Amino acid sequence: MPHRKYERIPRATISRLAIYVQELEGMERQGVKVVSSEKLAVSCGVNPSQIRKDLAYFGEFGLRGVGYHVFELKEAIKQSLGLDRTWNVAVVGVGNLGRALLRHGVLRKRGFIIVGAFDCDPFKIGEEIGGLEVICSSKLPEKTRELNVEIGIITTPAERAQRAVNYLLEAGIKGIVNFAPARIKTPPNVAVEYVDFIHHLFSVAFRITQSQAKGLI
Amino acid sequence: MPHRKYERIPRATISRLAIYVQELEGMERQGVKVVSSEKLAVSCGVNPSQIRKDLAYFGEFGLRGVGYHVFELKEAIKQSLGLDRTWNVAVVGVGNLGRALLRHGVLRKRGFIIVGAFDCDPFKIGEEIGGLEVICSSKLPEKTRELNVEIGIITTPAERAQRAVNYLLEAGIKGIVNFAPARIKTPPNVAVEYVDFIHHLFSVAFRITQSQAKGLI
Repeated sequence: MPHRKYERIPRATISRLAIYVQELEGMERQGVKVVSSEKLAVSCGVNPSQIRKDLAYFGEFGLRGVGYHVFELKEAIKQSLGLDRTWNVAVVGVGNLGRALLRHGVLRKRGFIIVGAFDCDPFKIGEEIGGLEVICSSKLPEKTRELNVEIGIITTPAERAQRAVNYLLEAGIKGIVNFAPARIKTPPNVAVEYVDFIHHLFSVAFRITQSQAKGLI
Repeated sequence: MPHRKYERIPRATISRLAIYVQELEGMERQGVKVVSSEKLAVSCGVNPSQIRKDLAYFGEFGLRGVGYHVFELKEAIKQSLGLDRTWNVAVVGVGNLGRALLRHGVLRKRGFIIVGAFDCDPFKIGEEIGGLEVICSSKLPEKTRELNVEIGIITTPAERAQRAVNYLLEAGIKGIVNFAPARIKTPPNVAVEYVDFIHHLFSVAFRITQSQAKGLI
């Protein structure tokens, strides 16, 4: 029952684990077999005590005084994150961002296979993007089941996000990644993540403002 | 010296403040003058004790037993985040994601004005996207100064991210938002944010895996 053990991994740890997987994969490509927590920490931009705490969930892959087996650690993290399998994904909203995701190779590379593209614009329906034909959003409930979609990516304008979400919920979807700049309502058993890159711009702007203020004082 | 006071706002608070600004702007459009912390909390999807804690930085805008002045609170938060002004931004890497950002109205709406688009691909240089002509990346140092770019957005492939960053650093840039799936090296006085939407997909996949495991046990 490995899931039991990983059940309480905190959210912040999850996003760091994702970085570790990325770096471990890079090391694997370079033929690295074993890595120390210090070295992994530096290449991930995380402090060593944090990485040791995070990797405590995967303790059995550590070699005292040496480090971690790159391959085994990577596989263990991937398994714990549910990344040792592929996930069927649908993109709802074929605007600039939706198109970019449909054409972006990184999703497939990471095990997220886009199996459906949806939009309510009659001018977009039927268009082929990234090898997929755009389907009318009103068909989302039936198509979600038919295509066995597990995760929905919302890239609609803000005002159409909830409707898209409702269609997906109707089909019993269990996970949503929302790029639309709008809060969405879902039952508590649905996993929802918001991707709001504007917040990152806000954060950078804020930190520049702070530095400038400090310089002036 | 308002900056002094806001100096220690934690990172997690900043991204919530960004959500509050978004919601307060929505309320303002609807003509709402005063809002209780409970109501604001619900519409932001944050718990009320958290919102009260966050808004303690802006205490003077609260009315005991009534709530917050929508306009004043919004303006105070925006000022603290450095959003009461516009920021000149450059996009480096005109692939699918770069194009999406160049055409995306939300950046400008939020005060981030894209003043330059850069790529090293000779087939892209000179192309017009979102009203901007794509400039050769090697001109980044001079153009960054000329266009008064303050924040660089990196949308290159992973292997070209550091070179793009180096060009920007050469021109003395103070903030970078990195969409490339690569860690980048910068001096400590440069504000860097990573936007990795794959992590959000990881997180959703992980939570679905957890729920399924719980159902099986």
